[in-house]
Amino acid sequence: MTYVVSRNPATGVESELDVVETSVAQVTMLSELAASVALDFARRPLSWRAALLREVADELEADADHLVTLALDETALGRPRLEGELRRTCFQFRFFADVIDDGAFLNASIDHAKDSPMGPLPDLRRIRVPLGPVSVFGSSNFPFAFSVPGGDTASALAAGCPVVIKAHPAHPATSQACFDALVRGARKGGAPEGLLGLVYGFDAGVALVDAPAIHAVGFTGSVLAGRALWARANARTVPIPFFGELGAANPLVVTPAAAKERASEIGAGFAGSMTLGVGQFCTKPGLLFIPQDPSGDTLVSTLVDALGELSPMTMLSEGIAEHFRSGTVTIADVDGNNRLVGGEGKGEGTSVSAQLFEVPASVFAEPSSTALREECFGPLAIVIRYLTREDLSSALEVADAALTFSVFTAAIDDDAAWLVELGQTKAGRVIANGFPTGVGVSWSMHHGGPWPATTNPSATSVGARGIDRWLRPVTYQGIPEELLPEALRDDNPLGVAQRVDGVLR
Amino acid sequence: MTYVVSRNPATGVESELDVVETSVAQVTMLSELAASVALDFARRPLSWRAALLREVADELEADADHLVTLALDETALGRPRLEGELRRTCFQFRFFADVIDDGAFLNASIDHAKDSPMGPLPDLRRIRVPLGPVSVFGSSNFPFAFSVPGGDTASALAAGCPVVIKAHPAHPATSQACFDALVRGARKGGAPEGLLGLVYGFDAGVALVDAPAIHAVGFTGSVLAGRALWARANARTVPIPFFGELGAANPLVVTPAAAKERASEIGAGFAGSMTLGVGQFCTKPGLLFIPQDPSGDTLVSTLVDALGELSPMTMLSEGIAEHFRSGTVTIADVDGNNRLVGGEGKGEGTSVSAQLFEVPASVFAEPSSTALREECFGPLAIVIRYLTREDLSSALEVADAALTFSVFTAAIDDDAAWLVELGQTKAGRVIANGFPTGVGVSWSMHHGGPWPATTNPSATSVGARGIDRWLRPVTYQGIPEELLPEALRDDNPLGVAQRVDGVLR
Repeated sequence: MTYVVSRNPATGVESELDVVETSVAQVTMLSELAASVALDFARRPLSWRAALLREVADELEADADHLVTLALDETALGRPRLEGELRRTCFQFRFFADVIDDGAFLNASIDHAKDSPMGPLPDLRRIRVPLGPVSVFGSSNFPFAFSVPGGDTASALAAGCPVVIKAHPAHPATSQACFDALVRGARKGGAPEGLLGLVYGFDAGVALVDAPAIHAVGFTGSVLAGRALWARANARTVPIPFFGELGAANPLVVTPAAAKERASEIGAGFAGSMTLGVGQFCTKPGLLFIPQDPSGDTLVSTLVDALGELSPMTMLSEGIAEHFRSGTVTIADVDGNNRLVGGEGKGEGTSVSAQLFEVPASVFAEPSSTALREECFGPLAIVIRYLTREDLSSALEVADAALTFSVFTAAIDDDAAWLVELGQTKAGRVIANGFPTGVGVSWSMHHGGPWPATTNPSATSVGARGIDRWLRPVTYQGIPEELLPEALRDDNPLGVAQRVDGVLR
Repeated sequence: MTYVVSRNPATGVESELDVVETSVAQVTMLSELAASVALDFARRPLSWRAALLREVADELEADADHLVTLALDETALGRPRLEGELRRTCFQFRFFADVIDDGAFLNASIDHAKDSPMGPLPDLRRIRVPLGPVSVFGSSNFPFAFSVPGGDTASALAAGCPVVIKAHPAHPATSQACFDALVRGARKGGAPEGLLGLVYGFDAGVALVDAPAIHAVGFTGSVLAGRALWARANARTVPIPFFGELGAANPLVVTPAAAKERASEIGAGFAGSMTLGVGQFCTKPGLLFIPQDPSGDTLVSTLVDALGELSPMTMLSEGIAEHFRSGTVTIADVDGNNRLVGGEGKGEGTSVSAQLFEVPASVFAEPSSTALREECFGPLAIVIRYLTREDLSSALEVADAALTFSVFTAAIDDDAAWLVELGQTKAGRVIANGFPTGVGVSWSMHHGGPWPATTNPSATSVGARGIDRWLRPVTYQGIPEELLPEALRDDNPLGVAQRVDGVLR
């Protein structure tokens, strides 16, 4: 038995938890237990399910001081950030309770029997049902909002799926305490035992993707781990959907007109965005496209000055910091790339300092520069200087698809339209005159994007539509009304949105 | 250069077409051409796109006699069936034009800027955009409705995606003539040249999955080919979504009460359903669960008599007929399985005869009986006799997930509720007192199901929601209104369904 260890990245202090890594047999047992209650859970009334999510939010909130203190120890992310993240996490559970109450996520549709050009059509009614137990992989960088009590867990429960969660090794004590709060909330709500499970350890994570009782996977994390588990999910006897949010380099373009108008403001703002949470955001803007002109120079020098004033920062773990340092070296080695801030060998253990590079757009577009286009997780960005619109366009074309694409424009700006249009081909969210490092939980949010930003271009891990991942449609043909789900009855007792004979009501 | 050959399965007559198999270079060229017009096509007004689909329907309809004559030669499916299938195909294009006009498929959502418990939220607006060029693999068994002019093509065009189609080798002349009609319709509608492409040959099909310009694949066909291409799509440098509809064994359960009430009617109906189109339907009911009692005996003997009266039938190709005969042998070899109709060595070339087997539920549930649970494409079914509800339930539990799950019940029937509930866990469509071999094109249809019925449990290849496969969401944050898609503007000039600040309108 291997005991799980909690490490404080700021002090290096380690403590063994009273928890051991989960065996493969236990993973099987937990996923089968989840499967054994799946139908019971799916059958419960929607109003009950919404109330359950609100109970969970209440329990997390009631334990806020304790949870934030644990996370502070394990992540060094700072109390204000962690308090905000936990508020958001509670809000997220309540938001998904609202999504359940709304009921439109069911996609209820009724076609009464009728004649058609191809002969008589039977009575057809469609709804979406939960997939079954899903596994959720907590992230390193958001101990609450994208971990045990995060959006994947909240949306899966909202969809009616039991959840077995893999705790991230960077914050096991926080994970356990959050899980305890989830379980308290679930018990208060009267949920079946086994609805929620928590596992620890690398082997347990792999087993959780393999487990036959698991029907889908939600993952937030690195490209390397995400792709390996995605391949594993595809290699099963019965492959399952794998929703991986893998991060991105996130281009941010400043037009010549915008640079002329407010170079310093954008430069200072960018320094804040790229170092927010020690640059450990999947939406960190990593590629900054700036005109090669005097305004662009001002922007760069403001950015360099702002970064230069920052003290060394503590990353989430030594492994992540090592990865950041080696990524920095790879980027520095690209020909034609010039270091503006930082230096090799800077930092040790979990301590790192901000890094900034500069490269001409023509160099960025070269095949030998692929290292510049990949995400480097941490406080690092690459400034790409462009001479002309064609220069900019060519450089943007070779950039990988991303979670976000930001454009800073002037009030009247010839470059706005084409950049917004290009942006929507390259990313899941296009932002004008704002930084991408905030992802609001709302009805209209999409947090996703084409490969390699995610493993599935249609899925979002934030916002109301996150629930879509855990549902599949079923059509009922000629089924007597008393055997239909309530949302498919003619008298619509739940009052959900229904499409009836082709008309949305 | 290999010329494409058209074969008449009924007469064996072959003729070389004035078309050669498509080279890999040509596949690349066609997919890049499609990509070069993708943005232009996506930008056109929705009303224009709907009109385009109606033009295509008109062109297919205008050429109906010619198309049906070609398909009759190449498939031996019979004129009434082919005429009906072409009517359905034209209806399907017009139906997707209605889906475009409706506009709800865009999932338009607007959240105005506001304060939230986590601080101010920016203006966020989400819509779904086309994925880009997609490839469609025509099926063998539906030369119109699931081939060149089929539902995948219609739904992808409706979504705003260019389409490059792989013609099925069983009906190349029909494919070419259908493609010509599509192109005439596209030209009349003023579509950009290159919006549609057609390729022939095995290597061209593989190249079409590999082509970097292709963003998703729609496939209808065998489990073997579908899984191989699915793996290929996943093995790309940039993996793409692969929507494979692979067929299924499709359980059909007759309760003891239903058997008592109308054994002969169900037996005769089943004979018709399992041999419809020579059993070459992916929705063919292949597993018939019947009580082991006198009513069940009556049902079986009616079915045996009905099948015995049928003449030999012509399958779509010699390859398909060979596969059917060898599948029959595999099934006959399972211990405890008893042949009721048909015989080994029956038929040659494309000619086959109906086959029926009978097995106790307890034998069906044994691990050594997996061959009985897999789809055998053609006029074959397996009767599974059950003694008790537990016996039935155990046998159904081991059946693979399927496209459909049918239940025949009496007016008052204790078995109806649990069978409908079990059915929705096992299939994409649950049918009461009807046969599964009709798949209506409608708003509420779902033609899909969990693996191995399809490669994606949330996707449908028939009905309005087929469009979902070819779209991905994009969120616009703080984008000036004049740069937003029309469907996301506050004044909603298109009149599409919008969710505004959380309220569906």
